[in-house]
Amino acid sequence: MEIAQSLQQIKSSYIREILAAASDKNVISLAGGLPDEKTFPLELMKPTLERLADTPEVFQYGSTSGYGPLLSFLGDYFKLPGTHTIMITTGSQQGLDLIARAYVNPGDKVLMEVPSYLGAMQVFGLVQANILTVSQTDFGPNLEELEQCFAEQKPKMFYAVPDFHNPTGVCWALETRQKVAELCIQYDVALIEDAPYRELRFSGEALPMVSDFCPQNAIVLRSFSKIASPGLRIGVVTGKVSYLEPLIKIKQGADLHSSVPMQALLHGLLEHDNFETHITIIRELYKSRYDVMFSELEKQLPTGCVLRPVDGGMFVWVEIPECDTFELAKQLLVNGVAVVPSPVFYPEGAEVKTALRLNFTNATSEELKVAVTRLAHVLHIL
Amino acid sequence: MEIAQSLQQIKSSYIREILAAASDKNVISLAGGLPDEKTFPLELMKPTLERLADTPEVFQYGSTSGYGPLLSFLGDYFKLPGTHTIMITTGSQQGLDLIARAYVNPGDKVLMEVPSYLGAMQVFGLVQANILTVSQTDFGPNLEELEQCFAEQKPKMFYAVPDFHNPTGVCWALETRQKVAELCIQYDVALIEDAPYRELRFSGEALPMVSDFCPQNAIVLRSFSKIASPGLRIGVVTGKVSYLEPLIKIKQGADLHSSVPMQALLHGLLEHDNFETHITIIRELYKSRYDVMFSELEKQLPTGCVLRPVDGGMFVWVEIPECDTFELAKQLLVNGVAVVPSPVFYPEGAEVKTALRLNFTNATSEELKVAVTRLAHVLHIL
Repeated sequence: MEIAQSLQQIKSSYIREILAAASDKNVISLAGGLPDEKTFPLELMKPTLERLADTPEVFQYGSTSGYGPLLSFLGDYFKLPGTHTIMITTGSQQGLDLIARAYVNPGDKVLMEVPSYLGAMQVFGLVQANILTVSQTDFGPNLEELEQCFAEQKPKMFYAVPDFHNPTGVCWALETRQKVAELCIQYDVALIEDAPYRELRFSGEALPMVSDFCPQNAIVLRSFSKIASPGLRIGVVTGKVSYLEPLIKIKQGADLHSSVPMQALLHGLLEHDNFETHITIIRELYKSRYDVMFSELEKQLPTGCVLRPVDGGMFVWVEIPECDTFELAKQLLVNGVAVVPSPVFYPEGAEVKTALRLNFTNATSEELKVAVTRLAHVLHIL
Repeated sequence: MEIAQSLQQIKSSYIREILAAASDKNVISLAGGLPDEKTFPLELMKPTLERLADTPEVFQYGSTSGYGPLLSFLGDYFKLPGTHTIMITTGSQQGLDLIARAYVNPGDKVLMEVPSYLGAMQVFGLVQANILTVSQTDFGPNLEELEQCFAEQKPKMFYAVPDFHNPTGVCWALETRQKVAELCIQYDVALIEDAPYRELRFSGEALPMVSDFCPQNAIVLRSFSKIASPGLRIGVVTGKVSYLEPLIKIKQGADLHSSVPMQALLHGLLEHDNFETHITIIRELYKSRYDVMFSELEKQLPTGCVLRPVDGGMFVWVEIPECDTFELAKQLLVNGVAVVPSPVFYPEGAEVKTALRLNFTNATSEELKVAVTRLAHVLHIL
């Protein structure tokens, strides 16, 4: 049976391949985007897990938009305006897929920063979007390029990860947020604000979301994978009612609804008195790992590498002298460290910066030190 | 933001609307396809639920194809041939959606029996399939029509629910199963065998699956929603490796993977010594309800209505004299009984038989009696 044309363009995810290789126990993996499973709030989940069997209703078919008690809790939690609504998705990845399916015709223009989140390029690729790109500065997207693109190309949507961008770790400045929101309104471009790392800020002050400045022009994707557990597969999409209705229609065909016991579990967790403390603990742990990795990188990397400090998230992006990054990644694997080479974060045809994405949330501080030493060793003999 | 063209054709599900109206407590609903939540095996799930918090690995990101221990358990459970593989989906509805997305280009021909499962028409509609239809006899699809369609139209796939069809309850005869498999091989048509009701047989002998006769030409969708719990959203897709690989690729973009704690929960349940007894209990309960409803229908329905006995599943299909079935369904709601009118089970343009789908698994025997009396009352004054 011949596969659909839309799928013929999709390459298998290189990350999946490297993650498989990275499972070798002699390899320290900086490749994935995994939280540390020792941080999962299992103790805080326990009371809800033990009560689940007393609530048969959560084992029945549920509503497509989500489990009522969780929806009303989150409505308050996110302080949604009255014009807005909320839906639960099977991970925020599904939210992104639903947006692509509901709004993008083949050839429709979707703008994103480069480099960009691989999973976003995948879903927009599947609907055969025409992916446009804008380059990234230390403060967010290049605003001149962005306005020119909005004005000349009239993209349907702008997909962005303003808080601790994957893969670069960049966090948009306040002025950039305001200006992007203004431009989205002025040129009638829908902002798709993907915020999975927002709660993982360990330095500096929290900034408003970009969508706070253009709530009527934005759909927001939120994740609980980084602060609670990715295994649950529970994400949240918010936006004005007219934006979300088509997503709910597609979700009905896609999986009817997301797991109700998992939604009830998340609800119990979010209501737990100690959940905020739990997030504080994660932030401190990840900061300590980041500090170790960053200072080791500063000490050990050869000249010609460019490092950018981050205030949160899961990744550091290291620009390196020009080379075949795939070949380098293979060599690094042989030397016991897994990383992700930059080309996988660029859509086809885009100009690629030679760089590596390094994750600092899954390995211990001791492992991070060893990994950086291995990395620096290979880069020195390059 | 304008919605995608593919979505513009999709009507909102009438079933969803009628289910909402049916939640009025004065209405007895025969409209949904819900198992009775009192049958959920909560006691059998309890030990696993209580152990979940001791297995942090199930709260981490998982593999797209599914949770290892569940996959290997199911491989044995389904006695899969060595050429075949298995993947877990977010309900079997997702399996169907993935098949449509992986294989169907706009205009590609997909054959199904009419009437047919609404959720299947939705997902094939979303990929803009050209839906062809074959009529149904008491023994399954009309074989002459089927062969003619295969020969002349060369559809890419044939979507079928051979065990206790939704909405008609028809269970294909053995000879029909063999012949359909033979034709699928002869004309190189992929069989999509959807088997959510297969375990709900309460009379007669279990028959082989159609795909047992054409394993290399079939993808099989299985559900645990009817025998365990629909809230979990765990379905299973099996088929030869080359058929499943594209599905896994799409699932990666669709939701990365299904909830791992829910997969672990299902695994614990399936391994429980009393799970088979649990299925026997459900079958007996549903048989008793079916017996009550069917004998009441036989007693009370006016002449001109055609009833067909079933050997399992969740539905009875009642053909009624020609009328506006939507108007009738509304009138029935006013009289305290919710049903689903036949037109929703036909793709646009197909010739519709005037009928009602009645569910017998969710209401008690006492409620079923009252519901049939209300139904008969309205039909008599029609």
